[in-house]
Parts: sequence; C-alpha cells; structure tokens
Amino acid sequence: MTLLADTLEAVRPLDASAMADARERQDRLTKPRGSLGVLEDISVQLAGLAGRCPPPMPEPAAVAVFAGDHGVHAQGVTPWPQEVTVQMVANFLAGGAVVNAAAVQVGAEVCVVDVGVAAALEPVPGLLPRKVRAGTDDMTDGPAMARDEALRALETGIEVARDLANAGNRMLLTGDMGIANTTAAAALIAVLTGADPAEVTGRGTGVDDATWTRKVEVVRRALALHQLDPADPVGVVAAVGGLEHAATAGFLLGAAALRVPVLLDGVTAAAAALVAQALAPNVTGTLVAGHLSVEPGARRALDRLGLRPLVDLDLRLGEGSGALLALPLVQVAVRVLRDVSSFDGAGVADKDAAGGPSASGRVQ
Amino acid sequence: MTLLADTLEAVRPLDASAMADARERQDRLTKPRGSLGVLEDISVQLAGLAGRCPPPMPEPAAVAVFAGDHGVHAQGVTPWPQEVTVQMVANFLAGGAVVNAAAVQVGAEVCVVDVGVAAALEPVPGLLPRKVRAGTDDMTDGPAMARDEALRALETGIEVARDLANAGNRMLLTGDMGIANTTAAAALIAVLTGADPAEVTGRGTGVDDATWTRKVEVVRRALALHQLDPADPVGVVAAVGGLEHAATAGFLLGAAALRVPVLLDGVTAAAAALVAQALAPNVTGTLVAGHLSVEPGARRALDRLGLRPLVDLDLRLGEGSGALLALPLVQVAVRVLRDVSSFDGAGVADKDAAGGPSASGRVQ
Repeated sequence: MTLLADTLEAVRPLDASAMADARERQDRLTKPRGSLGVLEDISVQLAGLAGRCPPPMPEPAAVAVFAGDHGVHAQGVTPWPQEVTVQMVANFLAGGAVVNAAAVQVGAEVCVVDVGVAAALEPVPGLLPRKVRAGTDDMTDGPAMARDEALRALETGIEVARDLANAGNRMLLTGDMGIANTTAAAALIAVLTGADPAEVTGRGTGVDDATWTRKVEVVRRALALHQLDPADPVGVVAAVGGLEHAATAGFLLGAAALRVPVLLDGVTAAAAALVAQALAPNVTGTLVAGHLSVEPGARRALDRLGLRPLVDLDLRLGEGSGALLALPLVQVAVRVLRDVSSFDGAGVADKDAAGGPSASGRVQ
Repeated sequence: MTLLADTLEAVRPLDASAMADARERQDRLTKPRGSLGVLEDISVQLAGLAGRCPPPMPEPAAVAVFAGDHGVHAQGVTPWPQEVTVQMVANFLAGGAVVNAAAVQVGAEVCVVDVGVAAALEPVPGLLPRKVRAGTDDMTDGPAMARDEALRALETGIEVARDLANAGNRMLLTGDMGIANTTAAAALIAVLTGADPAEVTGRGTGVDDATWTRKVEVVRRALALHQLDPADPVGVVAAVGGLEHAATAGFLLGAAALRVPVLLDGVTAAAAALVAQALAPNVTGTLVAGHLSVEPGARRALDRLGLRPLVDLDLRLGEGSGALLALPLVQVAVRVLRDVSSFDGAGVADKDAAGGPSASGRVQ
C-alpha cells in the first residue's frame, strides 16, 4: 500500500454515538436549546471526529501555508508579478504578513511549506522545504504537472499533517500562497462541481474586467484541452491544479486519517477539499469552513462540500487569514460543550424539562 | 450639568485625519488593497475613535452583563419563569455559563451588574450591586419605570463604562440577562425605528406560535397605551424599556465619551444602542456590532445604526456571547494595522505602485 492509499483507507465516518452524546449534552447546558446555533453543530461534529464527548480542546493549533507557483501566470491572469510568491514567503518567514499577525493574535503556529515555489529558497526556521517541482507548467499548453508529481504533492500534504499532529497540534488550519492560484482553483472547482468557468472564476487579489474575461477564457481553454473526468481527482489536479492545491488536499486527508479537525481558509482550500472529497468522501467530517471568500468559486465548492462558513467579512487575501479568524469560534464552541454547567448542576429552571430542575430526572 | 448631560456633550465624531491615515496605511501593507474587507473598515473606525493611527490594541477587554427583570413577564411572553434571571446571575458568578466559557477562551473579564433584578442578591466578587429598582412594572399597565429611574439606570451604565475603562480596559463588550427582555427590546426597536411590532418581535429564547402572537399583541398594546415620541428616548426607555436596556445605553455613551470601543452583543444591545443614538448620534462611531442575532429586531436596529455585524451564526443566547465571539476579529483587525509590514519595508512588489517597490517612492 502507498501512503495515499493507506490514508484514504483510514478516513472513516464521524462517530454517531459520540455525536448523539454531544447533542444530548448541549441540551442540558444552562442556555436555551439551540441558542448557540452553528456553534452547537460544530461541537457535535468535533465530538464525532474525536469519537468522544466532550471532544478535546482544539488547541494548540498550527496553520500550514502551502506555497507554489503557476505556469498559467504566463497567460496574464493577474497583474501581480510571479516573484511576489517568493517575496511573500520571505515576508511570512520574517513574521511581517497578515497571517503572522493573525496567528499571533489567536495563538497559532505558522508553518510555511515550499511545495512548488519557482525559485530556490534559503533554509530558515519555519520553512519546510518540500518542493515537488519549481512551479507548474501552463495548463493551457498541457498538464500543469505529471500525475506522479500530483501524487507526490498529495503525499507531502499527508506528511505535513502527520508531522504537525505528532508535534501536539489538535487543530490544523490551511493557508496558501501562489500568484495565479485562483485561476487553478477556478479550474478545479469548475471540473469537480460541473459549474461553468464564468460562475466560479473570480477577481482573485483584484483584477480588472479585461483580465477577468481573459482569466475565464484561460480556464475554458484548459478544460477544453484536457477533457477531464471528475471521477479521477488525481488526474484533475495534475492537469489544472497547483502544487499547493494537491498538497492541501493531502493535508486534509492526512488530518482526517488522524481525526484532527481542520479549518479551511478560502478558495484554494475549498478547491483542495473538493479533490480530497473525491478521493475520500468522509473527509468532510474533518473540515470546518473558516470563512466565505468573495471568490465566487468558494461558495460553490462549500455548497458541494456541505460546509457552512463561520466568518463572512468580504475577505480575499488567502495565506490562512480566514481560517485563523475562525479559530477562536471553534475553540469557544468546544469550550462551551466542555465547561458550561447543566441545568441540574447550576440549579437553573429548565423550561423544557417537566417539573423544573429538581424534578427533571436528568443525569448530569 | 448632570453626568448624563456631560457625557452626551463629550460624545464627539470620529477623527477624520486619523481615519485617512489608517486608510493610507492599510494600502501600504503587504496584501492586496481591500483584501481584508470589513476588518479594514474596523481598523479605520478604531483609529478614528482613538484619534491616532495605528490605534491601541483593543485589550484588555471586559464584558458588562447588565441584569434586570421585567414586569411584562406577567403577560405570558415567555415560557421561562422569572426566577431564571437570578438563577442565571448566580451561574455567571459561579463561572458556569456560556458567557464565562467564551470569556475564558477569548481573554475577557466578566462583570455582572445588577441594575434591576427582582430579588435581593448576596454580595459576591464579580457582582456590581447597582440596583435602580427590583424589576420594571408591566408596560401594558403603565410605564415600565419612572423617568427618573430611567435616568439613574442610564447614569449607572455611564459609571460602569468609566470604571471599567479606569481599570485599564481598552475594549468593552455588552452583555445582558433578563427573562422577558426581548419583549422590551422589540418595543424599543419598534418605537425608535418606526417598524411594526410584528416585524421586530422575535421568539426570544424560544417561544411557540401562540406565545409569539401574544408577544406581538403585548408590544402593540404597550405602544398604543404610551403614544411615545421617538425624539424623547429617555421617555421611550422609561415607558417600554428594561433597566438593562437603559443601563446599556448609558454604558455605550460612557464608553463613547472616553473614546473606548464597544462590541455590541445581540438584540438587547441593539435596542439600547438606538436609545443611545437618539441621545447622541455620534455614539455609533464607538460601536462595533458583534453578531447578528436571529431576533428580527436586531437586523432592523443595526440597519438604523449603520452597523454591519461581524458574526452571523444563528445565535440567540445573549449574555454577551455574540460580542465575545467577535472580540478576536476586532483584535486581529487592529493588530494587522499595527504589525504587518509595508510593501517597501518587506521588499514585496506592489502591483498598484508605479514601477514596483524600489521605485514606488512611498514612505514607510
């Protein structure tokens, strides 16, 4: 068995019994039933993932920022020069980017993974050198990468998840850096959801109308060239994906195999999650959508994944910023389930329990 | 001058110069312009409030949970017994409620203020005894409280904000506890926005159709009885408000006078903010809407206040829970403005600066 095959085999459904326990426990806490809305659902999901109620606190947490470059940049899909990928990686490693500020504030470690930057990077603390190749090829000319390279990127992501979990992290977050990577994300989402490229191609970090029109045409040409089968997600990500999309998909699968929850950042993560879902449908039980990117493909992908984003603040940055913003929300959801008193325990009357707290007969 | 008059006098507009500095600084940070969406707006607002760019970090933070009882409870507007108010206050003080768990997780102090609980409370650490009266009267029979009592509750809120700011807090959050207080909130929002009671009356902590219909009728009867003038917000809150609504309105005004930002929790805070806005329109510059409650009056009130809620997760708990969830988002917004590198400083190419970083001529 390969690492990928072993991992897919280990991605199992949520534990229904632990989820039922969590629902029942939520209903005994000193609050009106259901009054914490989506946070109650998250706590139940994480109980199902952990296989026990209450689940462990999702901390410490680490965000893995997968960085890669894109041959499709040559098609003029973004006004940013490709060198910005390596410049921003240096910025992450110097602690000067948004992902660093957000991680400091919410208490998460930042780990930068070079899975495909188109330049040689100096070894520095915080950088994991896992380059599969120095950027992809242009998807409008041929496949972005070889199938074997896609498999190596997937397995790299699995290994990063495993290493971060082994280091004690109990919550993983996705991040990404790669100039032109929203073009690859749009192509992946179009293939894997069946959407028209115009529906799922966005303005990325900010492109004008002419560039947007070109970007849609680029995706259309790539899809026409490759004639992809959504039932072959490795073939899809090899043809039109990025190295960071493939690695992120592996990261999600690796976390799922270890039953560690993952917060998804924006459209890169959503596209990667579709790849992971196509490989192992149960992976979605591991995933929490951190936020809703303004990229139109993000909503389409999250709908297909069945995930409701926690934060919706018109963000379109990437790096892991949207996942980091959602981290405290997930942590509060679990802490409530773990720490809040029951009606019986606190001597609070429960409108839904016959006869009030002393006569409710509930077991704490 | 009274404390209230002095306070209203001190509520001034945001500093336009500091806001312009903050916008300009955001545009120099190493991220695509505008890519942090609403978080950029929050950072600009807080710079305007502080009168300098960058503004101070909004920490430490404290949530003031104003507790009161409601004579309108006698009209059968909720299935919860009135005693739950005092039971939940005890739960807050014992650390067993959702507000406590959320506050521990995000790093905020919890301060419970008895401004009108209908029972004598034992003095314990964490409880501020500021009872104006032991619950309101039934608004369908006459005014909920005397005008003088409403003024005392407003001034109590001002003092609580001042004391928490003097203790070093740089961010304040609202919280509330009071069985039947969504009925008073609906009445306040109907009067102060001109909405029909059916549009702004919700199901509170969970009422059935018959109770909801009765609740709307109760609000309608109270408004018909009092024939209120929205230009007299003290008269409005005295007639149909709660002591916690009046005190929270004062809390917002007190914070505004001291230029300390406030995160609003749910519908109680939104109703109180309308009272504060009617007294001092500039108060809205101090306010950040923590979340969008499922109570329909919340959206109506936030629209009138011009505030966009940061979190929308179907919460309907109160206590301060929604404000606490939003606290890390506000803190990240400010930390980004303070800590993230500029394009020039980090050597990252800026697509919007002519000639790239070395030729951009920007001053860091």
